[in-house]
Amino acid sequence: MSKGDTKQGNTAKVDTAIKPTRAEDYAEWYQQVVRSADLAESSAVRGCMVIKPWGYALWERVQAELDAMFKATGHKNAYFPLFIPKSFLEKEAQHVDGFAKECAVVTHHRLIAGPDGGLVPDPKAKLDEPLIVRPTSETIIGASFAQWVRSYRDLPLLINQWANVVRWEMRTRLFLRTTEFLWQEGHTAHATREEAEEETRRMLDVYATFAEDYMAMPVHKGKKTDAERFPGAVDTYSIEAMMQDRKALQAGTSHFLGQNFAKASGIRFQTKNETEELAWTTSWGVSTRLIGALVMTHADDDGLIVPPRLAPAHAVVLPVLRGDDTKAKVMEYIASLVSELKGVTAYGRRIEVEVDTRDLRGGEKNWEWIKRGVPLRIEVGPRDVESGNLVVSRRDRGPKDKTVMSRVELVSSIASILDDMHGTLYERARSYAKQHTRRIDTRAEFDDFFTPKSTRAASSAGGEERPELHGGFALCHFSGDAAVEAELRDKLKVTVRNVPIDLQPDQYEGSGCESEEGTCVFTGKPAKLRAIFAKAY
Amino acid sequence: MSKGDTKQGNTAKVDTAIKPTRAEDYAEWYQQVVRSADLAESSAVRGCMVIKPWGYALWERVQAELDAMFKATGHKNAYFPLFIPKSFLEKEAQHVDGFAKECAVVTHHRLIAGPDGGLVPDPKAKLDEPLIVRPTSETIIGASFAQWVRSYRDLPLLINQWANVVRWEMRTRLFLRTTEFLWQEGHTAHATREEAEEETRRMLDVYATFAEDYMAMPVHKGKKTDAERFPGAVDTYSIEAMMQDRKALQAGTSHFLGQNFAKASGIRFQTKNETEELAWTTSWGVSTRLIGALVMTHADDDGLIVPPRLAPAHAVVLPVLRGDDTKAKVMEYIASLVSELKGVTAYGRRIEVEVDTRDLRGGEKNWEWIKRGVPLRIEVGPRDVESGNLVVSRRDRGPKDKTVMSRVELVSSIASILDDMHGTLYERARSYAKQHTRRIDTRAEFDDFFTPKSTRAASSAGGEERPELHGGFALCHFSGDAAVEAELRDKLKVTVRNVPIDLQPDQYEGSGCESEEGTCVFTGKPAKLRAIFAKAY
Repeated sequence: MSKGDTKQGNTAKVDTAIKPTRAEDYAEWYQQVVRSADLAESSAVRGCMVIKPWGYALWERVQAELDAMFKATGHKNAYFPLFIPKSFLEKEAQHVDGFAKECAVVTHHRLIAGPDGGLVPDPKAKLDEPLIVRPTSETIIGASFAQWVRSYRDLPLLINQWANVVRWEMRTRLFLRTTEFLWQEGHTAHATREEAEEETRRMLDVYATFAEDYMAMPVHKGKKTDAERFPGAVDTYSIEAMMQDRKALQAGTSHFLGQNFAKASGIRFQTKNETEELAWTTSWGVSTRLIGALVMTHADDDGLIVPPRLAPAHAVVLPVLRGDDTKAKVMEYIASLVSELKGVTAYGRRIEVEVDTRDLRGGEKNWEWIKRGVPLRIEVGPRDVESGNLVVSRRDRGPKDKTVMSRVELVSSIASILDDMHGTLYERARSYAKQHTRRIDTRAEFDDFFTPKSTRAASSAGGEERPELHGGFALCHFSGDAAVEAELRDKLKVTVRNVPIDLQPDQYEGSGCESEEGTCVFTGKPAKLRAIFAKAY
Repeated sequence: MSKGDTKQGNTAKVDTAIKPTRAEDYAEWYQQVVRSADLAESSAVRGCMVIKPWGYALWERVQAELDAMFKATGHKNAYFPLFIPKSFLEKEAQHVDGFAKECAVVTHHRLIAGPDGGLVPDPKAKLDEPLIVRPTSETIIGASFAQWVRSYRDLPLLINQWANVVRWEMRTRLFLRTTEFLWQEGHTAHATREEAEEETRRMLDVYATFAEDYMAMPVHKGKKTDAERFPGAVDTYSIEAMMQDRKALQAGTSHFLGQNFAKASGIRFQTKNETEELAWTTSWGVSTRLIGALVMTHADDDGLIVPPRLAPAHAVVLPVLRGDDTKAKVMEYIASLVSELKGVTAYGRRIEVEVDTRDLRGGEKNWEWIKRGVPLRIEVGPRDVESGNLVVSRRDRGPKDKTVMSRVELVSSIASILDDMHGTLYERARSYAKQHTRRIDTRAEFDDFFTPKSTRAASSAGGEERPELHGGFALCHFSGDAAVEAELRDKLKVTVRNVPIDLQPDQYEGSGCESEEGTCVFTGKPAKLRAIFAKAY
């Protein structure tokens, strides 16, 4: 699976494996990290990506952990059609407005030979009603729910779907914004408003837990403003994370849909009192975008760093072979080491180890695994077999990190090493986000905060130049005026990410109680809470 | 999740839970089993189904086991675009001929308000080149392989994709034939013809092992005739199983593609000798059709029977509650029983148990689980708590099967009970298939064999009338004449399923060596092997 990008090897490695660095060109650095880690690539189909094995293995880890959390909260998986009849999309007015502009439309069901020899859609096979490739499934799942729900005994109905969806995008970037992407969409129906609101918040909490405990990515949970709501929702909640260019990335959303979709789809139930009522519904989703978030939260100038709990392999063993006479002994030793490591459990999951036996130079292999971000690299050579020692390198430390430890020590401590690594990654991201999240109380300060300028990156040892970085997240009292949001979007490309719930003092610079009331920075009106303003992906 | 179909309860149960029975109307029986087991239903989108939670859980079990087998044979998962540019499909002439007639064509990427108020595809958003929703991915994956493969060191390239595909169907049946279905498609590239042929056969073996050892479904492995090959393949192999109406169902295919797709997509590699050669490729797939096969292999007139190794839950506990005073004690006892059972491993997997605490009559619940086919039903009432006994019912036995056993006995024997059940299901299916698979050496006998007639079903205790059943599988020497195949298809709706590899004496009636040469039943020409002729799904 390794290709093309291994030529730098370790000889050319005077500085960083990824060129350009974050500081030099953040957008290009991101593309290079994704490419060097062999996560994904563009396809011949405009806007659609190919997810390569290492990238897909990461997504499988995301799926496995989230799926277990969904099941533990009572949800069951099901599968609904890829196609949505146009008339279904039209049922909810705001919903169709939100998606009509970016949907793939199927109009024919057959190709025939055309006049110039190639194939053309057969005019005789034109569909009476065009089908839309699902951009999201509220309306098609709503139609099923309307069949399934008869009485209060059928509620709550808690369903999740893992699927591909399509939203036509003009400007795409691998994982962050693609025309087709993979996701999960939860859809639930409840007897009361309270239960549906509780579910909306519960799944937001699940997402936040996943982001922090598995991705080692600190997030702000909060409610979207009216302007940023999901088309057709009553309330949209999101988790927002700060990337290393200080922009926000919306990593998951949970929507309280009220009775809007129940009305559009006819999801009615008989209550205990034998009256008929509309159900209350929710929907919530995360997507392959999370892989982009993971990259931009943890990767460094040497490539990807995969948080241990999501790593497809926790460690890679690199045999150091010097001549054929010792090879058998080293490989035998490695086999027994691997089998011993696989007996260890970390975070409730067996340790997974790859052994890289490819016939490549050691430095080349080492750098390849650095760029792929595998948490631990373990070198084993003939002398190690004799001494019972190993050389272990942690990916969260520099590329030259090497610790000699005994085999016994590695086996007994690998789980705690991985745990420590998770903690380090989380703390590094939290500290960076905190450092660039500021309470702002005047418009002048706000405008200055969002004006890109050269700064010395305090977190970097070398203190290299970082051209054109703006401040980060601004926490401002906001009265909720949509015209303000429009102005900020147009002038500064700044949007309200959300109005955070449970903002904690370790999430921003400065002190002060977040529940304090204040004055809207933009309108001067009284405002109860601070919202997060940021540039965003 | 239980709805609508529970009204029969046990009072109306003088005969069977599924009406009509297999004997009365096989096609309708199938639909009713699928409906009663809550596996799937038709959707508002013509030809597309909704896979309901119990059906999807079965598919997840299929996925989990197959995925492990694919990974154990060195394959990695990846994901490729849903859309295929029309020009890609056109690259392989036979391939496009095979799929052009049944493909969903995306022509626009936006909807706008139409003259009559509704939405219409925006003429300004017409695609320059139509996109095809993938019916299979050889061409789009081939484009990636052409990028990934440079040298012999990159081979073999062993990739699998779990995905949805679309083939426009005019007549659809849940699971068996739907416009959209879920599947996996393996795609591999090799340096030599021999390696690619070996891979083709290896994956055929994986499918056969899965069918027999997990689905308890006996299959014939064999090679397709030229007329039945995958469009663009050199050789197509299949596994074929006999359903209870004696028709064949193709349950999986594995294709040796030669260099056809490598040529079409430009998959070239540099050999060790620094010459450039085309790669040799394979593809292989199974789909949600397997769920239909599972139903038609094992279900009876009381509903589905799920083979233990694929059961989402191995057992359901049905609390027998008589008044509130004993409820707490019973539920506590059940909780400890469940936790004890979950500590047991069967076939390398933890026992999974559901507890049905719904407020429904006991008989109603019992019949619901019979129809869903859960392997074991365990009743626990207040007296059982006192005595330490339980009442266990096996789904492979009649609906009235009840065995009283001690809790200790159940826990210690549940794994072997499930194993015995797997054996019973497999043996029942094997015996039925054997009984209706016959060596036929004359055209007169052949025509008679495929003429539907009333027969007494020997396998049925009651010996009920089975109108319009034909003989089953005919094993005939065949010289491979395509005109014969066309005639048989038109006149008798009979096709050659495959030319079996390793036909075993326990797979057909009568004796004799299968490797014996003979004379083609249809042309009188010499023929080396017997082929399987059957009506098919």
